Amino acid sequence: MYQHILVERAGDAVRVTMDRPSRRNALSADHLAELLAAFREAGDSDASGIVLAGNGPVFSAGHDFADVAARDLDGVRALLRLCTDLMTTIQHVPQVVVARVHGLATAAGCQLVASCDLAVAADTAGFALPGGKGGWFCHTPAVPVARAVGRKRLMELALTGDPIDAATALDWGLVNRVVPEPDLDAAVADLLHRATRGSRAGKAIGKRTLYAQLDRPEADAYAIALEVMAEASQSPGAKEGMAAFLEKRAPVWPD
Amino acid sequence: MYQHILVERAGDAVRVTMDRPSRRNALSADHLAELLAAFREAGDSDASGIVLAGNGPVFSAGHDFADVAARDLDGVRALLRLCTDLMTTIQHVPQVVVARVHGLATAAGCQLVASCDLAVAADTAGFALPGGKGGWFCHTPAVPVARAVGRKRLMELALTGDPIDAATALDWGLVNRVVPEPDLDAAVADLLHRATRGSRAGKAIGKRTLYAQLDRPEADAYAIALEVMAEASQSPGAKEGMAAFLEKRAPVWPD
Amino acid sequence: MYQHILVERAGDAVRVTMDRPSRRNALSADHLAELLAAFREAGDSDASGIVLAGNGPVFSAGHDFADVAARDLDGVRALLRLCTDLMTTIQHVPQVVVARVHGLATAAGCQLVASCDLAVAADTAGFALPGGKGGWFCHTPAVPVARAVGRKRLMELALTGDPIDAATALDWGLVNRVVPEPDLDAAVADLLHRATRGSRAGKAIGKRTLYAQLDRPEADAYAIALEVMAEASQSPGAKEGMAAFLEKRAPVWPD
Repeated sequence: MYQHILVERAGDAVRVTMDRPSRRNALSADHLAELLAAFREAGDSDASGIVLAGNGPVFSAGHDFADVAARDLDGVRALLRLCTDLMTTIQHVPQVVVARVHGLATAAGCQLVASCDLAVAADTAGFALPGGKGGWFCHTPAVPVARAVGRKRLMELALTGDPIDAATALDWGLVNRVVPEPDLDAAVADLLHRATRGSRAGKAIGKRTLYAQLDRPEADAYAIALEVMAEASQSPGAKEGMAAFLEKRAPVWPD
Repeated sequence: MYQHILVERAGDAVRVTMDRPSRRNALSADHLAELLAAFREAGDSDASGIVLAGNGPVFSAGHDFADVAARDLDGVRALLRLCTDLMTTIQHVPQVVVARVHGLATAAGCQLVASCDLAVAADTAGFALPGGKGGWFCHTPAVPVARAVGRKRLMELALTGDPIDAATALDWGLVNRVVPEPDLDAAVADLLHRATRGSRAGKAIGKRTLYAQLDRPEADAYAIALEVMAEASQSPGAKEGMAAFLEKRAPVWPD
Repeated sequence: MYQHILVERAGDAVRVTMDRPSRRNALSADHLAELLAAFREAGDSDASGIVLAGNGPVFSAGHDFADVAARDLDGVRALLRLCTDLMTTIQHVPQVVVARVHGLATAAGCQLVASCDLAVAADTAGFALPGGKGGWFCHTPAVPVARAVGRKRLMELALTGDPIDAATALDWGLVNRVVPEPDLDAAVADLLHRATRGSRAGKAIGKRTLYAQLDRPEADAYAIALEVMAEASQSPGAKEGMAAFLEKRAPVWPD
């Protein structure tokens, strides 16, 4: 059904793999549309987690210039809306989304990493906003990257276009784990397992509320989170968690 | 007067100690109400600093499930409003508040650490938002934690529920100092001393303005801070500081 | 023309040097006015970058108390507006601005470092918001510092007034590079070169959009960045970058 991506279900997780290795997983409109469809489909499924991976030498080189160069303003605007839809859909699906970054993630490819809830990188990975070297500046990729790293580090990435290595990305908070490349799948599986424990419904509300309260003044964030947390206390998952704790037994999570 | 906490005045500082070791300093409504009363009382006192500590094996395990499990929605909402009142009161009292974290600080206990102005941890401390393991998701604890650590790190803490150790908390900016456990009181006293130097009134305005300008677009933050700083220039503390500097003598701070 | 600063053009960059070493480059109204004029002039020039440096033992000691002490509220307000104008002008000029920090940068001097797009420090540099020690609290310097370092680190800097060394500033994200003092000019030149590559017009739009989208909820940031990025795709720089990439040749950047 898909031409540019592979979608597999493995246990409780869906794995979406960018599979345009000859194009360095560049994000043409067709590729973006397939990724968006796959994330929407996975979002509607009963999976508890989603892994975003890439086949070939790089994770993703970002937009496909062969697809951008011929577009006029309206055409590029439509392409960027599609791209932004993908990024925000990754944040809006109820599942935990983990980026599996084995190689270079540049421009909108780096934006994908920043937009996933969590990210595990191989020590062979690299991260860049290469529009800083000249050409098409990485305006939209800088949006989620700015929210993961500090301001001076954002400026360095965005203005220089130079790549940082995986260890620096870990130090700056752009990824959660760095492991030797052969250990990458195990590390992704371990983090995904930890992040998807418990009630799927409860975690979905948790993820949604985290994104809702971020980037807001603290009082506004509390107004959002307090009401959600009060309602969540009445959920089967919370009731079971508290009962199990008080009865000193292992919880049996509802779906 | 208090059943769950100890309140001591030592020099210029008030020390508030959670003293429910058998309940791992869990934050029942009664415990929260006492902490809130103690912070309000300390806030109205002439103390220059407040230390928040805990007795027993952990700093605080967060909400007391024995107190939550039986509550309906309105009851939990009231409990969370009380809890949020405590967190924001810690930020609103004119004194500098330092968390003294000797052991595990989880859920609303971790929220307490994030809500204090400063935090000193023993190397035996740990920090977690354990609702991520299942059960009652840590929606409100994630509010101040999100504002201390980066986004990917927040997601990891909130979604996995796994603890981080003191060294990681220092690296992520959740605490200011990590010391061997026997050195904890000395390190708290040293940081509190440094943070409470100068005019008590001037520092209170400083603290209030810091929280007012955070989380806002930079232009809004400047609008707030500029007017406060202009007015502060006319205060006895600022006048004395500038005069002492210009006269090359030690300042004598007004209260 | 200027009494307190030196302004030199070297290649594509303007170097603005605070030159009041006997006053530790303190920011009197006259000094601030000259810096503001120099940044406006450089901003209107065809330079691609600006370096802000200081002569003498320190980078800048912040406001000149000899100029503040005699001012009434209106006088200080005018001084702080001038100072804030300088800080925001640094962010608003189309050129990339790099702070060259060889020594102590305190109060409004530290604010200057935080306000520059990028910063390179010698290992002899230090950073402080000394109003935390007493006297005139560093309300406005804390605005950009808060946006470069985490909340707990801001509180420590602002409330204690104690300095951090260059390595800590690097760890906290207040500066981008730390090098031995003899290597400072080379490191500044290297970073400035990297950050000013490509089309000057494109980078100016990039810088402006970064500051516009920061500090906002992510959806608002995307709304800003998406439209700018769509329009930028039609610019000569973006067209040349994509054409060169697709034709596998080196780009020839337009101005």
